[in-house]
Amino acid sequence: MDYQRILEDIYREIQPFAREGKPADYIPALARVDADRFGICLDTIDGGQYLLGDASERFSIQSITKVFSLAAALGLEGEALWSRVGREPSGTAFNSLIQLEVEHGIPRNPFINAGAIVVADVLMSHYERCDEAYLDFVRAISGNPTIGYNREVASSERATAYLNAAIANLLKYHGNLHGDIERVLNFYILQCSVEMSCCDLSRAFKPFADHRSPFRYGSTSLTSSQVKRINAIMQTCGFYDEAGEFSYLVGLPGKSGVGGGIAAVCPLKYSVAVWSPRLNGKGNSVMGMKALELLTTRTEESIF
Amino acid sequence: MDYQRILEDIYREIQPFAREGKPADYIPALARVDADRFGICLDTIDGGQYLLGDASERFSIQSITKVFSLAAALGLEGEALWSRVGREPSGTAFNSLIQLEVEHGIPRNPFINAGAIVVADVLMSHYERCDEAYLDFVRAISGNPTIGYNREVASSERATAYLNAAIANLLKYHGNLHGDIERVLNFYILQCSVEMSCCDLSRAFKPFADHRSPFRYGSTSLTSSQVKRINAIMQTCGFYDEAGEFSYLVGLPGKSGVGGGIAAVCPLKYSVAVWSPRLNGKGNSVMGMKALELLTTRTEESIF
Amino acid sequence: MDYQRILEDIYREIQPFAREGKPADYIPALARVDADRFGICLDTIDGGQYLLGDASERFSIQSITKVFSLAAALGLEGEALWSRVGREPSGTAFNSLIQLEVEHGIPRNPFINAGAIVVADVLMSHYERCDEAYLDFVRAISGNPTIGYNREVASSERATAYLNAAIANLLKYHGNLHGDIERVLNFYILQCSVEMSCCDLSRAFKPFADHRSPFRYGSTSLTSSQVKRINAIMQTCGFYDEAGEFSYLVGLPGKSGVGGGIAAVCPLKYSVAVWSPRLNGKGNSVMGMKALELLTTRTEESIF
Amino acid sequence: MDYQRILEDIYREIQPFAREGKPADYIPALARVDADRFGICLDTIDGGQYLLGDASERFSIQSITKVFSLAAALGLEGEALWSRVGREPSGTAFNSLIQLEVEHGIPRNPFINAGAIVVADVLMSHYERCDEAYLDFVRAISGNPTIGYNREVASSERATAYLNAAIANLLKYHGNLHGDIERVLNFYILQCSVEMSCCDLSRAFKPFADHRSPFRYGSTSLTSSQVKRINAIMQTCGFYDEAGEFSYLVGLPGKSGVGGGIAAVCPLKYSVAVWSPRLNGKGNSVMGMKALELLTTRTEESIF
Repeated sequence: MDYQRILEDIYREIQPFAREGKPADYIPALARVDADRFGICLDTIDGGQYLLGDASERFSIQSITKVFSLAAALGLEGEALWSRVGREPSGTAFNSLIQLEVEHGIPRNPFINAGAIVVADVLMSHYERCDEAYLDFVRAISGNPTIGYNREVASSERATAYLNAAIANLLKYHGNLHGDIERVLNFYILQCSVEMSCCDLSRAFKPFADHRSPFRYGSTSLTSSQVKRINAIMQTCGFYDEAGEFSYLVGLPGKSGVGGGIAAVCPLKYSVAVWSPRLNGKGNSVMGMKALELLTTRTEESIF
Repeated sequence: MDYQRILEDIYREIQPFAREGKPADYIPALARVDADRFGICLDTIDGGQYLLGDASERFSIQSITKVFSLAAALGLEGEALWSRVGREPSGTAFNSLIQLEVEHGIPRNPFINAGAIVVADVLMSHYERCDEAYLDFVRAISGNPTIGYNREVASSERATAYLNAAIANLLKYHGNLHGDIERVLNFYILQCSVEMSCCDLSRAFKPFADHRSPFRYGSTSLTSSQVKRINAIMQTCGFYDEAGEFSYLVGLPGKSGVGGGIAAVCPLKYSVAVWSPRLNGKGNSVMGMKALELLTTRTEESIF
Repeated sequence: MDYQRILEDIYREIQPFAREGKPADYIPALARVDADRFGICLDTIDGGQYLLGDASERFSIQSITKVFSLAAALGLEGEALWSRVGREPSGTAFNSLIQLEVEHGIPRNPFINAGAIVVADVLMSHYERCDEAYLDFVRAISGNPTIGYNREVASSERATAYLNAAIANLLKYHGNLHGDIERVLNFYILQCSVEMSCCDLSRAFKPFADHRSPFRYGSTSLTSSQVKRINAIMQTCGFYDEAGEFSYLVGLPGKSGVGGGIAAVCPLKYSVAVWSPRLNGKGNSVMGMKALELLTTRTEESIF
Repeated sequence: MDYQRILEDIYREIQPFAREGKPADYIPALARVDADRFGICLDTIDGGQYLLGDASERFSIQSITKVFSLAAALGLEGEALWSRVGREPSGTAFNSLIQLEVEHGIPRNPFINAGAIVVADVLMSHYERCDEAYLDFVRAISGNPTIGYNREVASSERATAYLNAAIANLLKYHGNLHGDIERVLNFYILQCSVEMSCCDLSRAFKPFADHRSPFRYGSTSLTSSQVKRINAIMQTCGFYDEAGEFSYLVGLPGKSGVGGGIAAVCPLKYSVAVWSPRLNGKGNSVMGMKALELLTTRTEESIF
């Protein structure tokens, strides 16, 4: 398959959407990003790499980090993790407190904020020095030891994270947050501030596509079955209230972030990451969604 | 792959669960079924067929019929269908009126009752004689011209279908039901009363697995892309409030019914149907779920 | 107290609001009413009557009928009525299905549609010929034997009563509707079609103000305590989602209808009825609310 | 009216309920209270005082404090207060986050926790030294300069106030909390820790009953109309999810607290306070509710 040419075709074809949507602006550090950047990188499991545009530029991965957190927590805690967080799609906006209250403090899945805060709490119970340990894992899985947090983004987010603080307090009220609320929140928000390029992300998602190879990065290891099951959760829960739409149009497990990034995998074929900061009304990258829809249409490779 | 032997191994392995759960008993006709029947049938896309137990016995397919209805409606109405029904997972019990009211009469997806009632309304606007036309399609796709409705089941369901009648009235209130409420409800309930065996179902789902072959049955035809997209909806919405669980444990697009049947596909590999009337608390067949989980574990074939 | 002069002062003072809001138009028969009518009638318990404007013109009392229905049902069924309907304010729009589903078919109070449909069902279980029996009671309590139903309004409402039909079906599903759905709905809607003037209504509410006199009309009798308790329910539940607002601004138990009428009582002092078809966004008469607010301000007579 | 004798009769009559319910035990300081205390005190507006049992013993007034806070805030902020908090009954449990999220951060009324936290925020924007200023007002209105906070109760509550912290963060998120979250929460919780006896409370509520006398305590003054309107809010919102029940059975404006206290007023007649720590499932004093129901039955004095 001539992926390079397909990426170039896609790039041309999505130009009509180049001005649709606008970047996240709830914190200054994100609003400063040039809205018109676009990058894409695809890694095949047999070692090919195809890229285009701003594929090497780092951006704030935001919620994409939740995939790494889930992988780390599942490796450390095992299936016991599921007593504290579900794996059902949420069916409401990503930050809704309603479901959490109705379901007595068990978040629907690890990819809504409530679930990711519980996952952060689980990680802190295992890690001695959580900030370093988490970064070590992300660096290992992406093969890039220069990846780091953006502490300006993190502290800017923390200053106005009232909704996440409400969620954390509600979790604590229901007995589903064991650590100190402030520390867990800080760690959760720090995770979201990781900066990576499309190439970093594509490489870091390759182990999810290539589940027949051993998954072992530092102290974190997963079985092939666990890796496939993380893909299953990405498929049903990776796109907030638009998981069904993405599944319908693209047909790949993936995860998006409000920084404009999307990473996805075609099991046993390739991983891919795309970045374009303009978001649609549901918080997903407009051009990113479009590019991935065209990718599976052109390649005729999707999980369905 | 020695599917026959795998099916036999699975059958032994699920015996400990043989008495778990109980059959649907909300109507007498369903409650009369022998709770301890079990059948499974698997069709590979290259023509192999493997079966075991009561695979040839007909049962009430109930909600599995929603897949055929969606296929028929998508063929007749095209993408315009999505202005009347969503394709997002519902995140609440399959018959909840709450989401419907909050979202002003647009059902979340075609596999909850509200969505299927809208689909029935769409079909009636296209079919001249809807009962015959729908049955013709089901017979054609399964290759079995003897398949029929069970009108006793249908009339028994109709007599107590207060919740579905509430849903239909609420749809009408919101302008999303064009036909006569009574007629649409009757047609919807009749669809659910279709009786098929595991072998019939597996055969009828094979076109969804084999999306590279033309999908044309009577007047209904779908593109390859449409077929794959129906698979995507089965994946995210096929198991009521347990779609994530099924996706996580089994990893195949599928659809269950309260008659105890489940049909699923492994794209480009096989279709499979299993039947066991005892249901778990979420309305899905206990042994059916277990059998399919073991199937993808043993074969190492899932979409992820 | 010079009530006549107070009414005249009020009438002048509310003129600036004369064009605010618009009449209910969901059925043609209501939309035809002249939007600019205004009438008010006040009956003191010692026999005085004061009126102004279109106080003798009949209009569709709509939901005000729920007070008569509750009185009749409480008289016939006694406190057992409260096992089938609550007496808490609803806190959501008057026709919401959500609360009904969450609370398993027990309507919050007898003045939301769901509660009134249950009350209609209760009445039908006691009355031999319900249409006549109910009208007899309304005629008796208002002392006007010429009062009647408007069957054109009723049949017009019935034709599009999808939401009420949804509610009735949901009640039936939860086992809280014993009669035939169609018959109960028809009877409920017929009750709402009663036509009365402000003078009729004021007279019919006088027994609620004058709870020290015996309450006995035809076969319906209530204790003084029961009468006062109906007032309590009017106070907390009589104005849909605006019960608190009415209580705050007016401070009298009362009941409004989408025909633009409001009836209220000042216990041991007077009953009052006002009519003006233009409604605010919550379905209550703009000038009616304003007039009653001024009435209690001027007279310094409220229950608080 | 021989109130003393009526109180004694009531006391005898409620003995069968003496062991029903149990005291609040969510913090140790409340759980330590003797569950079997009972006191009642009634002040007529013409100066009579009638008391019985433990009427002079102080207890934690908890949510009853919300009436004083509302009075103070309404005095300082005027009608502008209603842009930040509603006055409709809530229709759900007193601490529900759901309504707050659905209604975008405007609490339903000042007597649910969310509303009282907004009221605390309002008070802090007016008071220079809020702890002292609030206590001064409570001491002034009750005529008892020895009334104080119980800081052990307050700090014990603060340590586990996760739900209130969730509410405060959600209010901040919606822009309806202007002060520092921690400080507002601490002030709100301190207000709830005020300790008063039935006699203190009855005296402090007398100005609400006697709304024809000037309401001026320290820097806080209210018009007669404002006082009556606070009564209206007590009537519709004073008993959490049981406001309708209390209104129906008792028929007086009032406010309860989880310490087991209830204070109520019969406008232009008397104020009354009762205390008994055992609570029903809705968090209201079992014997307190019963005693007040009998009081209005015996005296035949209620607002209806």
